[in-house]
Amino acid sequence: MSQPMVRIRYCPRCRWLMRAGWMAQELLNSFEEHLSEVAIGPGEKGQFDIWLDDQLIWSRHEAGRFPELREIKQKLRDLVDPERDLGHSDRPVVTDSQAADPS
Amino acid sequence: MSQPMVRIRYCPRCRWLMRAGWMAQELLNSFEEHLSEVAIGPGEKGQFDIWLDDQLIWSRHEAGRFPELREIKQKLRDLVDPERDLGHSDRPVVTDSQAADPS
Repeated sequence: MSQPMVRIRYCPRCRWLMRAGWMAQELLNSFEEHLSEVAIGPGEKGQFDIWLDDQLIWSRHEAGRFPELREIKQKLRDLVDPERDLGHSDRPVVTDSQAADPS
Repeated sequence: MSQPMVRIRYCPRCRWLMRAGWMAQELLNSFEEHLSEVAIGPGEKGQFDIWLDDQLIWSRHEAGRFPELREIKQKLRDLVDPERDLGHSDRPVVTDSQAADPS
């Protein structure tokens, strides 16, 4: 298959299957023409990692949090469809700590 | 990865992504310990096909219809966890035509 694929690994004991499934559908909804498939599967304890082919684009352990959907959409857009305008998903991500501190 | 994987190919123009995503989550919900992953991706016109590794276990074109979820769960159970009792998903599938004709 010529198109790249996304792989999501979630912690099954944390019950993150639904979260992974939701993200898989959202990513295909946005990038159906640019991805061969999105694969979700059980991983390690506390894991919520996302790859584009062999490139790790999100690690919950490294980031210390789950990604905002728009963060993943922006990363994927930059990699598979860089000319694309994502509309409302192209606004900067505002985290809780930033929202609480307007500086 | 030692566990087998499921692959679903759906027709994107038919808007069967949600159906594929739902099935992916259902299959992982039932067989999380026996599958490495479930991959969903856009396919050909009218396609809704399901593989376990290289084995085609459902073809919408061949069957002329979508599978009942329990049909796929039964097929997967037979292949990856044959001793398993699927509970209510182990009742025979009753199709509309059978239901209309009690013979």
